[in-house]
Amino acid sequence: MSGTAGAGWRLAEVAAALGAGCEGAGDLIVTGAAEPATAGPDDLAIALSPAWAEALGRGRARAALLWAGADWRALRLQGAILVPRGRLAMAHLTRFMDPGPGFAPGIHPSAVVEGGGEVPPDAAIGAFSVIGAGARIGAGVRIGPQVTVAPGAVIGAGCLIHAGCRIGPRVAIGARTILHPGAVIGADGFSFVTAEPSRAEIARARLGAGPDMPAPEDARWHRIHSLGGVEIGEDVEIGANSCVDAGTIRPTRIGRGTRIDNLSQVGHNVVIGEDCLFAAQAAIAGSTVIGNRVVAGGKCGIADNLTLGDDVVLGGATIVLANVPAGRVMMGYPAMPMAAQIESYKALRRLPRILRRIAGAADRSVSKSGGTD
Amino acid sequence: MSGTAGAGWRLAEVAAALGAGCEGAGDLIVTGAAEPATAGPDDLAIALSPAWAEALGRGRARAALLWAGADWRALRLQGAILVPRGRLAMAHLTRFMDPGPGFAPGIHPSAVVEGGGEVPPDAAIGAFSVIGAGARIGAGVRIGPQVTVAPGAVIGAGCLIHAGCRIGPRVAIGARTILHPGAVIGADGFSFVTAEPSRAEIARARLGAGPDMPAPEDARWHRIHSLGGVEIGEDVEIGANSCVDAGTIRPTRIGRGTRIDNLSQVGHNVVIGEDCLFAAQAAIAGSTVIGNRVVAGGKCGIADNLTLGDDVVLGGATIVLANVPAGRVMMGYPAMPMAAQIESYKALRRLPRILRRIAGAADRSVSKSGGTD
Amino acid sequence: MSGTAGAGWRLAEVAAALGAGCEGAGDLIVTGAAEPATAGPDDLAIALSPAWAEALGRGRARAALLWAGADWRALRLQGAILVPRGRLAMAHLTRFMDPGPGFAPGIHPSAVVEGGGEVPPDAAIGAFSVIGAGARIGAGVRIGPQVTVAPGAVIGAGCLIHAGCRIGPRVAIGARTILHPGAVIGADGFSFVTAEPSRAEIARARLGAGPDMPAPEDARWHRIHSLGGVEIGEDVEIGANSCVDAGTIRPTRIGRGTRIDNLSQVGHNVVIGEDCLFAAQAAIAGSTVIGNRVVAGGKCGIADNLTLGDDVVLGGATIVLANVPAGRVMMGYPAMPMAAQIESYKALRRLPRILRRIAGAADRSVSKSGGTD
Repeated sequence: MSGTAGAGWRLAEVAAALGAGCEGAGDLIVTGAAEPATAGPDDLAIALSPAWAEALGRGRARAALLWAGADWRALRLQGAILVPRGRLAMAHLTRFMDPGPGFAPGIHPSAVVEGGGEVPPDAAIGAFSVIGAGARIGAGVRIGPQVTVAPGAVIGAGCLIHAGCRIGPRVAIGARTILHPGAVIGADGFSFVTAEPSRAEIARARLGAGPDMPAPEDARWHRIHSLGGVEIGEDVEIGANSCVDAGTIRPTRIGRGTRIDNLSQVGHNVVIGEDCLFAAQAAIAGSTVIGNRVVAGGKCGIADNLTLGDDVVLGGATIVLANVPAGRVMMGYPAMPMAAQIESYKALRRLPRILRRIAGAADRSVSKSGGTD
Repeated sequence: MSGTAGAGWRLAEVAAALGAGCEGAGDLIVTGAAEPATAGPDDLAIALSPAWAEALGRGRARAALLWAGADWRALRLQGAILVPRGRLAMAHLTRFMDPGPGFAPGIHPSAVVEGGGEVPPDAAIGAFSVIGAGARIGAGVRIGPQVTVAPGAVIGAGCLIHAGCRIGPRVAIGARTILHPGAVIGADGFSFVTAEPSRAEIARARLGAGPDMPAPEDARWHRIHSLGGVEIGEDVEIGANSCVDAGTIRPTRIGRGTRIDNLSQVGHNVVIGEDCLFAAQAAIAGSTVIGNRVVAGGKCGIADNLTLGDDVVLGGATIVLANVPAGRVMMGYPAMPMAAQIESYKALRRLPRILRRIAGAADRSVSKSGGTD
Repeated sequence: MSGTAGAGWRLAEVAAALGAGCEGAGDLIVTGAAEPATAGPDDLAIALSPAWAEALGRGRARAALLWAGADWRALRLQGAILVPRGRLAMAHLTRFMDPGPGFAPGIHPSAVVEGGGEVPPDAAIGAFSVIGAGARIGAGVRIGPQVTVAPGAVIGAGCLIHAGCRIGPRVAIGARTILHPGAVIGADGFSFVTAEPSRAEIARARLGAGPDMPAPEDARWHRIHSLGGVEIGEDVEIGANSCVDAGTIRPTRIGRGTRIDNLSQVGHNVVIGEDCLFAAQAAIAGSTVIGNRVVAGGKCGIADNLTLGDDVVLGGATIVLANVPAGRVMMGYPAMPMAAQIESYKALRRLPRILRRIAGAADRSVSKSGGTD
């Protein structure tokens, strides 16, 4: 299964889309991309390092996207595109071949556009979507089926809003941003307070010392409503079923070019900079501020009210419980600089054996020195 | 961006809503709340501690919500509301200013209310929502667009069900409970069994000893269906895209006043007490029982078939693998009392250095004592 | 609250459905299943071990599902079904009693079936669902309300697709598979590349050494589109609000019989074998390959581009950062064999005390031997 192209593309045309030169039979037609071993005769095989060369021989591709310096003739190909940075070429290639979501243009007859909602003629609104009163939809916006856009929300030009997204009130989304299916933007933040200080509040103030106090008379939580909305920059992506909560009295903000994967949580009042990358199931708690170009592996968590500098890198599943200066590479729970964390892990792994050995030696030493403990 | 109020409110009126006194110009009109530095002349600036005083000078607010004892005249304000517990005042203020979700009253013409479904005249049912046969919707319930309520489900008076929620069969929800967008209540629990004992079952029984047994003849999983539904108390909140699974032969239960954040999972047969707070991405596995007033930071996980007492506090990302007595403050993976966990973390961080030092000393000691290991 | 059955079932009929014998009054009518203490006179009480015997006495059940060898007469029951493997019997019993989702047969008049979509007469399509052009729906498929099936997607015979699921383009789903509410199949994978090597890329190549290099000139992320779709086998389940992303140039694959719980993430190009079980909030990063019969507790994470062998078992919240051979039982962050991990945890817990003791002894030893460090 691969991208389809109707009648396909000439190899030279594909090379041009990649900004690369075309070797050999530029008139060869390719109809999709495929892995080398399973490629058919009309597929462009993807073999971006010499490790894939052998697999090419097992497939039937006549043309391939190859690593720089590859000897395409020796690989028995009729044509090839050679690229210095393979994954970048894949970005260009897959964008070129992507047929898109297939949303029909125009407003589907079943969609509800409430009075005062503004939809330009070149926008697409899917079946059973609801555009609230006063919402502003930019030029060329594509909205899938079963989407909710709250009254007054603003969707910038060229945005792609997939099926089932929920866009709340006081949300503004910049141009060309993509929301994947089921994303929820602008739900209420999780912010509660008891009438008197709660036990958790006291425990936190005491840094974890267990309070031996009676339960409070009135343990009910009063919710702090979220009036601040969300501002999302241009060229952002929010993953499927991810949530970006509204701020309390100012917007939660996500900067230009930042990409957040599926099932992630961005809490109220959070500010995320530009060109960040958060892999799946990220969680950023309320009021935390994150710099530019921060990259986080999957399942990372960042506690509330922290600051992470620019260019921080978090290994997968890192849990950040304190501020992180710019440029740090962190890992673990709680997060430490990665090199120190790896050293600690190794020590921990050796620990049981070493403890047995050291304890024995120390016992002997202690017994010799007459020490007691 | 802040809460809007049409013509706004008199400062004295806001103070009254907060149960607080009004200082200075009670007739001043405010139209929203804002942070001190960015507040406009019609905003109520929020400055709940002296740390915000300087920022007030940079903004243009004429009125502010201030900490108890603040000298509002010295801050060059025309009016002020002084409060002893700022976040509690924020709860009252934001509730007062919240314009609400803007769901139009009545049953939207596109909604489907199946035969026998009961919708009182003051309830709101959004566009493209489906109310199953025999479902009972309480007085004043507000249901957003694209919601599913299964046949026979019960929604208590005053509930607020946001867009895209899925309420399954045999679900009963108490009064004034809020479901945020995309919440799924009453899906099938994750409960499977193989015909013969599986390797995982044996590994668990052996506490992790790796079984060197062959794979079973028949490894297929048989699902245990969930017939027990869900019972949710009054004044509960379930976060966006969170899931509360149905019980097997009795309901999964969530007690009055408990609040669960986005992207959280409550497994089948779980019982959660009253006034608990679970921050985002919580996971509570099947049949676990949780007391009252338990508070958990984000990303906490609690294994199945455990008991947590009242007033337990879990730090962010805590993974609970054993029962926890009432009142404990826990942290880490696996969870330990927080003070012990922090001590262990510190020791672990020092461990590589200390091991090198100790190992050297012990080597010398061992060589002196002639010991071998 | 329990499964309902209209007029109920004869006890002998229930026993037959379980492939078990019936003791005593086979003509007794039961209308549902319940826990022993809360069972009414028409409930089948579930008491699968002697630990439940006492509770039976407190309830009013006249018939029960009992452990093998139970003396049902001594328990004062009128009838009983005795089973050797209780949870397996529960699978059979709950399937027998489950009234199902109650989706009305046929295509709901509000549903949109785009030109060329193929829906057999015995399939059910719920209200406000959208079936894209060229999608193929198998015999007996039940699709709930507000579901999206993209153009060209294939849904195998007998599948059950709950409310609000999103099935993307180039997705093929095998027979009898169940998608729980809000599942998203075939969204774009999270795959990005910068024009020049990013800091995170370099940090990863250096295994975490912090790069002290300036930020790149051009930090923008170029997305690699997902053209490969998803292939899901027969008898699979995907949990509520879970996501299975599309592959890049070949499908992401989930094998026959595998069950994945709620709020889980399966990244692009992942291959999962048959009969696996992943509890809630699992995350499997891009291009990882997982064998057959792998079982994972809740909140497990597996990094990208790894291989896990057959029959691997992961304890709850395990984070796998390296390949795992077949049959291993793993735990922790980072994952270690469970026995070693437990030993390390114990050592870590004792560490602060031991370090104090050992450090004192070593200090004495060092001072005696005149060593410096």
